[in-house]
Amino acid sequence: MSLVVVGSIAFDSVKTPFGERERMLGGAAVHFSLAASFFTDVRVVGPVGDDFGRRQYEVLHRRGVNTDDVEHVEGGSTFFWKAHYEYDMNVAHTEDTQLGVFGEFEPKLSEESKSAEHLFLANIQPDVQRGVREQCTGARFAGLDSMNLWIETARNSLVKTIAGVDLVFLNDAEVRMLTEQPNLVRAAREIMGMGPRVVVAKQGEYGAAMFTGDGYFALPAFPLETVTDPTGAGDSFAGGFLGYLAAQDDWRDDATLRRAMTYGTVIASFNVEEFGTERVGRLTREEIDERFESLRSITALETAPA
Amino acid sequence: MSLVVVGSIAFDSVKTPFGERERMLGGAAVHFSLAASFFTDVRVVGPVGDDFGRRQYEVLHRRGVNTDDVEHVEGGSTFFWKAHYEYDMNVAHTEDTQLGVFGEFEPKLSEESKSAEHLFLANIQPDVQRGVREQCTGARFAGLDSMNLWIETARNSLVKTIAGVDLVFLNDAEVRMLTEQPNLVRAAREIMGMGPRVVVAKQGEYGAAMFTGDGYFALPAFPLETVTDPTGAGDSFAGGFLGYLAAQDDWRDDATLRRAMTYGTVIASFNVEEFGTERVGRLTREEIDERFESLRSITALETAPA
Repeated sequence: MSLVVVGSIAFDSVKTPFGERERMLGGAAVHFSLAASFFTDVRVVGPVGDDFGRRQYEVLHRRGVNTDDVEHVEGGSTFFWKAHYEYDMNVAHTEDTQLGVFGEFEPKLSEESKSAEHLFLANIQPDVQRGVREQCTGARFAGLDSMNLWIETARNSLVKTIAGVDLVFLNDAEVRMLTEQPNLVRAAREIMGMGPRVVVAKQGEYGAAMFTGDGYFALPAFPLETVTDPTGAGDSFAGGFLGYLAAQDDWRDDATLRRAMTYGTVIASFNVEEFGTERVGRLTREEIDERFESLRSITALETAPA
Repeated sequence: MSLVVVGSIAFDSVKTPFGERERMLGGAAVHFSLAASFFTDVRVVGPVGDDFGRRQYEVLHRRGVNTDDVEHVEGGSTFFWKAHYEYDMNVAHTEDTQLGVFGEFEPKLSEESKSAEHLFLANIQPDVQRGVREQCTGARFAGLDSMNLWIETARNSLVKTIAGVDLVFLNDAEVRMLTEQPNLVRAAREIMGMGPRVVVAKQGEYGAAMFTGDGYFALPAFPLETVTDPTGAGDSFAGGFLGYLAAQDDWRDDATLRRAMTYGTVIASFNVEEFGTERVGRLTREEIDERFESLRSITALETAPA
């Protein structure tokens, strides 16, 4: 059961009220891969430059992520992003973006990646996402993430790309923006009308809501006393979600999808406790399962009898 | 098991993207009373003017709310509030506020109200809230709501008032503002440190989070395709919550508190489907219980076996 993720590999310089880091390993495909690696075999596809070296690969390899399709562009620089967060950590304030080799990224999938059973298209230009989707014809399911930029500048292409996937992950504001529908329930239904079976509206510190046919599941975020760096939370969430799902026989089953969203929420909660990949890089399956049980009891209407 | 609520009785003129109403019955104490009336005997304490008449009383009496302590101030006008909502209905834009008789409100509680077993202090100036609390010495529990205005202008008084109650209802932004603590978990713990056993952080369309000692419960809002008028949602939530709680033997029990929050969420969801008190005014206990079960299944990590 392998899962291929195509997206950005990056260096992030991030400052929050609780500290800062220079050029730490980041990028959507990295956060997604690490999160998914707890449940299934993961292959990461994305471009890096000459500045990307052994230490960065090691973070991925330690979690068993296959990097054969990481494309090293000679003479190029890895995507770089610099940002700071204020006390309201729901909003990242970007200070600098240098696309580097990511600017001309044309994903070249190996035969192994093309024949992967599960695919995640992290946030990239939607034409590029669709090109990848069309190469992976045998995938049991495909998911995607996107962002406000593509809704504003490439909406038609994004809608076409959405039509070709099974699961869509967007922030709730993006769900509304894409459909120009202020009511989230109706907006999510409209996106399902474009093709996908599952629409997940990410709500940051408030958790997430999942729409599936007539079904609906809402889960709060795990309550944390320490939130150090929210960067990568959404990709960790999608990684835990789809990684778990890839390892199940019937990914369409409602209870399975609910557990998948819960695993995604759990891994995202670890991700934000420290900078970048620091926490998830040394996370254990036991810690994940322990927090899964905590989240279950936090949200259970009926508490277990004493 | 009687529950006394002290707070505003009002006329509201509200415009939303889905329509408008002139001078409809409103006010925190009214929304709270109607919501609580499904579970327990309710007495409402608040001032009205000459413009408050039989039609308004009838809305309360139809739900069995005792209005003996509604104080009619001769020659005065009932509190009036005018506002509009844009598509983002999380924010009310106030256009006019005329305090009228509410401006000089000095609650006079009858012996019946003073001996009530349960008390809710809706959002009023905190000195006034504390004065009422001190008259109801026998209450099994007391709850309060407040707002940013009192945090900014009467913080010390509010903290003293909070020290005398068992349950605090605030928006999550107010929880943070009161404690100057950006982390919600720590902020809620700080408020519990002031005295109350339970702190409920209301999160609008995202639901609510409840802190109880070491315990935590989070519940999303009920997903609605139609949100017509959010006015009174928070007071309906508190009314359903405390009304249910007042009717239980052990209000401190964790499972009981979780069910109480769920009933509050259910009644708030009906409240916002139509203008003012229109929907809750004709609500039935059957409808409430049906939606309670829907909310349970929406949030259940394990779906019931087919």
